[in-house]
Amino acid sequence: MPVIIKVNMTTKEITTGENPDYGLLGGRALSARILLDEVPPNCEPFGAKNKLVIAPGLLAGTPVTSGSRVSCGAKSPLTNGIKEANCGGNIGLFLGRFGIKAVVLEGQPADDNAYVLKIDKDGSSLLVMNELKQLGTYETDQKLRARFGKGIGVLCIGPAGENRLKMAAIASSDPNGELKFAARGGLGAVMGSKGVKAVVVDKTLQQPVYHDRQKFMEMVRMIHAEFINDPKIKQVNQKTGTATIVKAVNAMGALPTRNFRQGAIDGVEGLSGETMYATITSRGGEGGAGVSCMDGCLIKCSNIYPDASGKKICSTLQYENIALLGSNLGFTNLDPVARLNHECDDIGVDAIEAGAVLGVAIDMGMGTWDDLDGSMALMKEIRNNTVLGKVLGHGVQVTGDVLGSRRIPAAKGQSFAGYDPRTLKGNGVTYAMSPMGADHTAGNCFGSRGEVNPRGTGQQGDLSRSLQYKMCALDSLGFCIFARPPLFKDPSRMTTLVNSLCGTDISVDQLWEIMGISVVKTEREFNIRAGLSPANDKLPEYVYLEPLAPTNEVFDLSEEEMLKGIV
Amino acid sequence: MPVIIKVNMTTKEITTGENPDYGLLGGRALSARILLDEVPPNCEPFGAKNKLVIAPGLLAGTPVTSGSRVSCGAKSPLTNGIKEANCGGNIGLFLGRFGIKAVVLEGQPADDNAYVLKIDKDGSSLLVMNELKQLGTYETDQKLRARFGKGIGVLCIGPAGENRLKMAAIASSDPNGELKFAARGGLGAVMGSKGVKAVVVDKTLQQPVYHDRQKFMEMVRMIHAEFINDPKIKQVNQKTGTATIVKAVNAMGALPTRNFRQGAIDGVEGLSGETMYATITSRGGEGGAGVSCMDGCLIKCSNIYPDASGKKICSTLQYENIALLGSNLGFTNLDPVARLNHECDDIGVDAIEAGAVLGVAIDMGMGTWDDLDGSMALMKEIRNNTVLGKVLGHGVQVTGDVLGSRRIPAAKGQSFAGYDPRTLKGNGVTYAMSPMGADHTAGNCFGSRGEVNPRGTGQQGDLSRSLQYKMCALDSLGFCIFARPPLFKDPSRMTTLVNSLCGTDISVDQLWEIMGISVVKTEREFNIRAGLSPANDKLPEYVYLEPLAPTNEVFDLSEEEMLKGIV
Repeated sequence: MPVIIKVNMTTKEITTGENPDYGLLGGRALSARILLDEVPPNCEPFGAKNKLVIAPGLLAGTPVTSGSRVSCGAKSPLTNGIKEANCGGNIGLFLGRFGIKAVVLEGQPADDNAYVLKIDKDGSSLLVMNELKQLGTYETDQKLRARFGKGIGVLCIGPAGENRLKMAAIASSDPNGELKFAARGGLGAVMGSKGVKAVVVDKTLQQPVYHDRQKFMEMVRMIHAEFINDPKIKQVNQKTGTATIVKAVNAMGALPTRNFRQGAIDGVEGLSGETMYATITSRGGEGGAGVSCMDGCLIKCSNIYPDASGKKICSTLQYENIALLGSNLGFTNLDPVARLNHECDDIGVDAIEAGAVLGVAIDMGMGTWDDLDGSMALMKEIRNNTVLGKVLGHGVQVTGDVLGSRRIPAAKGQSFAGYDPRTLKGNGVTYAMSPMGADHTAGNCFGSRGEVNPRGTGQQGDLSRSLQYKMCALDSLGFCIFARPPLFKDPSRMTTLVNSLCGTDISVDQLWEIMGISVVKTEREFNIRAGLSPANDKLPEYVYLEPLAPTNEVFDLSEEEMLKGIV
Repeated sequence: MPVIIKVNMTTKEITTGENPDYGLLGGRALSARILLDEVPPNCEPFGAKNKLVIAPGLLAGTPVTSGSRVSCGAKSPLTNGIKEANCGGNIGLFLGRFGIKAVVLEGQPADDNAYVLKIDKDGSSLLVMNELKQLGTYETDQKLRARFGKGIGVLCIGPAGENRLKMAAIASSDPNGELKFAARGGLGAVMGSKGVKAVVVDKTLQQPVYHDRQKFMEMVRMIHAEFINDPKIKQVNQKTGTATIVKAVNAMGALPTRNFRQGAIDGVEGLSGETMYATITSRGGEGGAGVSCMDGCLIKCSNIYPDASGKKICSTLQYENIALLGSNLGFTNLDPVARLNHECDDIGVDAIEAGAVLGVAIDMGMGTWDDLDGSMALMKEIRNNTVLGKVLGHGVQVTGDVLGSRRIPAAKGQSFAGYDPRTLKGNGVTYAMSPMGADHTAGNCFGSRGEVNPRGTGQQGDLSRSLQYKMCALDSLGFCIFARPPLFKDPSRMTTLVNSLCGTDISVDQLWEIMGISVVKTEREFNIRAGLSPANDKLPEYVYLEPLAPTNEVFDLSEEEMLKGIV
């Protein structure tokens, strides 16, 4: 029977209990359920009443490709509503293999020790490791691997999380010693408020209990075969990764440029996925593309971006970060983007939010566009936790509010991702209406640009709503968005996986309902009780007023259209 | 017929129209009505859609004592809900005499000029007076008087308002050349966002139109006689003013001390009203007590507090400021309080909010208690609009959030006034449940301590609710809280005034309903549409958890009791 580990940071008690009540809920779905059941929605995000739920997806631990992501969930200090952020790395896989459905960090320590929660075959224990205090995520991860073994799964926070900066992320170690991020919503700061610097899970080959292993593995083989036989995987995903879309978003006029003042940038070629891949391959050294972020992934969209001498700058350079830390700051070269990206990763902040923060700060006169040193100096303020660093580190809404900006690219306190809502209006619906705040992973309409005109005023609400619950189902199962094609082509493949794993007999409609629709409704219920009433489902005024070059579009969806975006 | 002046700051058009629809609404009641009718509640407070309503109370312009206060109202940048703040000074009197029910500043200029709205017998006009930019309120007021005549009524903002700092206040000139403040809720920043540095109203002896002047004047004489014959006025109000209660609040254990860490301070004697009066009288010079803040006031609770050489430090030293800028910062001497008070006044910030800000900042290690130089240095940051100054200038919620405090004495984004809710629990209800956020003027239960045990857990909701609508009625009529005794003793005196002025025939119940209950309901409706759902009616967690020395009380009212506080 799958277990829930509850770690009371007030008393340091750890309880491990079987909990059959959650049925098929995993990942985001389980996190939402636990939070609504156990956290008073209008509590203070950094108080003892908030909880951090770490829940691998339902399929985590199985060998299905890209299916062992881990969800982190809590009341967000950034949005003041519920938040889920998931990531790759191996910890989800190992938690799943151990049969652990969720680790719940609750309460709050009176001391200020740096705690590490260690989970292995013998159980769970809390260690004091004050030597990790204020260390960057990379050094933290390395020290933990040195102590507990190279192959462990790690979730950790950087100084930003310890300092409770509201854009702090949670880092997850991948098989290459690189870090992936459950970045959005400031969940790293919630982890910091619990006094937990890291969660370490032992590598294990233990297998989950299958209801019908043979049937499950048959379906896995069928799905894997499609990936293996899909030429796009090798020719696109493993080369240009998520950065494949840079030029397409630019062509759409939706690429955040200089604090969302434009939707396209001259010289976009320098930021493109093609340039990225060419640079990685020509520079060689530690660099590489086609890297997987969890064991067994067939898609391998990750990369290690090296400098001219072949030394790693960052991993992974990906679309959102190129948009927010690149064009949004006036860069048309990937090297400064990679440097800023690594700095965000090491401090432990959401690179999307950080890019938006720097954009607003520069826009308000605190720097200049296309200036790596200036942007790095602002990042240093964040690392050093100065007053200015705190302002910036609390995210773009706080930064813009403090500095007096009227152009704050945010919804529900969280920054837009790499798509200007004026030219990809469906994402405007998602930003405003999703319980997650402005988060492209909650329902990114970019991929549907062939079906729904991104600049049209119709169909956007329906499109966003549909994507919101479908993405949520992927999050609940533990799947990466990139695993979508063979799953969405025939969603009964997902139910076959679920049913043969769990011994259930759910239909596709039931899957969407249980893992998608009802989850988003649960999240919305949490938000409403938290005080985020429907009046908070909105975009900033400037996107309605300020035409976006070069298309000169404004955001012009009717209220009626927006309301269709409510799941 | 009374008129509404609308000033469109986008187009600079001024329209003066008779508007009979508002019936008996004046002051706060009229402001609430106009805001709900004309401002989209979930607009951005500093955007073109917000409006600043300047509305004298219904009785303003008549000779009834303490009855010509002026209300300022807008969507507050501090609370993100509706806000009204009213003050003395002569401008309400002159607006009332001119028959002007409200001046509404709307839209937003594209330029960054400093505008002055001038109202006189010939009408209204907008002047550009860039020479006033960034001047303190005192110098602004003096320059305006020098230009337009000593006896004019002035509303103006200081640098804080121009810089859109969220705790910016609106200053109102009084007959002595001193300033009173519509301080709370950041309305000065809204005025700043309209580009309006000042509103100037000519002195006039014009009289309002009475339905039955004789009857009105009879009632005025009756009310005045009670004041004149009340020995408390001369012996208390005109000596120790609002500071009369310092020792009583300290004895109750509710005096904010060192960022609300204690409810009483050793050496409170140094802050008492008695010490204040003795100091003023012994020092002499420019100092004085028993000063009126508007023509014709019989109560005269204001004062001018001088330094040892007799030179004015500030006017008026009053209870709330002594609490927040005094004991809350660890002072037990009035001189530093007076210096900080003047600094707040001249920068143009709410002294209550500023005291709370300094308290949190010092508590978070940015200064030391009982240190005038340190506190003045922080105030200088605000005046100079540095990054730290912006953080502080946006009020205590932003300050605490940015610095990472878990002890932020605020409700709905606005700081507590001078009563700790743990020992004056009724004010906890008002802070949490009033649409105004934490504002003692919205329903201060201190005066009812003889009837309802301030530390009891019952009756607090009923008490707060009753006071909320009654205070609101006073705000709507234009009365000062100090005018309460003869009015509340026989509320039909208020209806006699209203009916003989306006030709109506309302009952006392109707008066409470029209000017109180329905107004607070209107305000609450605005807040709900603004996104401040009932889940936002709350106090910070620490007041429930942290016992307050010396009584060791926590805030422990039930949710049921709190809900009784909803008007």
